[in-house]
Amino acid sequence: MTRQQREAVDALHRNAPVRPNPTLAERRAGFALALSRPLPDDVTAHETVLAGRPALDLTPATAAGRGRLLHFHGGGYVLGSPGTHAGFTAQLVRRAGLRATSLDYRLAPEHPFPAAVDDGLAAYRALLDGGVRPEELVLAGDSAGGGLVVATLVAARDAGLPQPAGAVVFSPWTDLTLGGQSMSTKKDADPIFTREALQAFATPYLAGQDPAQPLASPVYADLRGLPPLLVQAGSNELLLDDAVRLAGRAAADEVEVTLRVWPQVPHVFQNHFGHLDEADAALDEAARFLSTSVRAGREAEVERPLGGEGPGAGRP
Amino acid sequence: MTRQQREAVDALHRNAPVRPNPTLAERRAGFALALSRPLPDDVTAHETVLAGRPALDLTPATAAGRGRLLHFHGGGYVLGSPGTHAGFTAQLVRRAGLRATSLDYRLAPEHPFPAAVDDGLAAYRALLDGGVRPEELVLAGDSAGGGLVVATLVAARDAGLPQPAGAVVFSPWTDLTLGGQSMSTKKDADPIFTREALQAFATPYLAGQDPAQPLASPVYADLRGLPPLLVQAGSNELLLDDAVRLAGRAAADEVEVTLRVWPQVPHVFQNHFGHLDEADAALDEAARFLSTSVRAGREAEVERPLGGEGPGAGRP
Repeated sequence: MTRQQREAVDALHRNAPVRPNPTLAERRAGFALALSRPLPDDVTAHETVLAGRPALDLTPATAAGRGRLLHFHGGGYVLGSPGTHAGFTAQLVRRAGLRATSLDYRLAPEHPFPAAVDDGLAAYRALLDGGVRPEELVLAGDSAGGGLVVATLVAARDAGLPQPAGAVVFSPWTDLTLGGQSMSTKKDADPIFTREALQAFATPYLAGQDPAQPLASPVYADLRGLPPLLVQAGSNELLLDDAVRLAGRAAADEVEVTLRVWPQVPHVFQNHFGHLDEADAALDEAARFLSTSVRAGREAEVERPLGGEGPGAGRP
Repeated sequence: MTRQQREAVDALHRNAPVRPNPTLAERRAGFALALSRPLPDDVTAHETVLAGRPALDLTPATAAGRGRLLHFHGGGYVLGSPGTHAGFTAQLVRRAGLRATSLDYRLAPEHPFPAAVDDGLAAYRALLDGGVRPEELVLAGDSAGGGLVVATLVAARDAGLPQPAGAVVFSPWTDLTLGGQSMSTKKDADPIFTREALQAFATPYLAGQDPAQPLASPVYADLRGLPPLLVQAGSNELLLDDAVRLAGRAAADEVEVTLRVWPQVPHVFQNHFGHLDEADAALDEAARFLSTSVRAGREAEVERPLGGEGPGAGRP
């Protein structure tokens, strides 16, 4: 973990080229270019369809057993796709030894809230219906994708579906009211976002709807019944408090939760794997959490008594 | 992790015998009896003196290298001693492979704030003066002892001393104003404390002094420069938010921090090792954190260039 690496990452973000008044198509293309990381040789990608939405299957050579990761990319509910994040997702799954399906959920402004949550829930349900056991299923997502992971878990619980074995969220965006203290205290430290930039994502996604409703801003949700969560963030984030308060909410709601914050690194610093030691350490930790969750879930499943018994059975 | 175990622990606390109007001596004796756990065969204890205060040295058969743990027991700054916590501390050090020194810091009401912090800082300084390298030194404490760990780190920083390699706090009491939301939301869930009971510890310790001053309530301290922290808590605690807010403060202040909350277990549940799976898992995690911190510190020390250079040198 070196200061030189952190400063290089910070400068990379601060010096990113900005096109004046870009069109939506230009913003999406620019985001794809900025995020793009190569797919490693040991991960195979192929396009598929999940619950009627395009999706990307990523299978690492290290995949063992039936464990599955459902992944939601970031991009403020406006930008991004499984393709923009394929390199990042691949790094996670090759370390975890899990096959992943990354969902191309509908984006705003074409499809405002709750389209993304509807797609997330439909994809989750489709995996279960397709034979993936909840004990072998884990979720992950970064930024808006992290918020969407939590919203999907809440929606799944409310729909009476069983919970998965665990979930990881990287720098999750959980408060679309932009209500965290770090929105002001990290103003100078955050090399990526301004309040205005975040508002420019929230506005088309919400399309006039209440920003504080639980499925849009899961920091305000009742999180009871959710599976073990790992929440990672960097300290140089306007959204730091979205992570801290999510962890606090989860803890209060009797969810097993781990919050891990690395100093002096930005929003979704994990995408700087290979160049930033913190990124590789964080991805390793996340992968360990996911594979351990699947293993623990599978063991609980084996111990489940015959004749049982719906959602939650086999969980302690 | 079984519900039966958690319920047994909860009942144990709720059914603890209460003596009406105990004297201070009776309270201290009762606390010692309630906390007492046997010293494992593979840990040797002997009494010593550190910075003019009695202390207990605990050396596990697993101890390797020069790593050292400075330990502060809990007891609301009024009760407890290295002896009451010897079984607990021993479990931590045998898992970590570290020799520990547990400090008999001065207690209230005989010695109000800042006596405990003065003793903590003096002990820390004495270990450094005695040849323990900060890179090989770690701190740990539970409850009030956890708050004292953080206060000692802040006091050490302000005194110009180098920081240790890391610190673990178990259900730390970090807010003597009793300002956390969990003070009310966890009223029924906490089988140990009431607000009145906590106030009855704070009052003699503060002896009329400001409860919000940083060294009494480190959740209000500037935590910049502190080493990596691991904060553990249970969800059934009035003091849950003392842990959550400490982690949030540390994260905002660019401290590398991990918060880990287990559901449905009480204040300092780690002392139920051997009877509660969460306790053993938490102690194992804490021990891993401590031994890894010492190892990382030692490696950074080896890499330190010749001729450098005061506090913080050799840390990334």
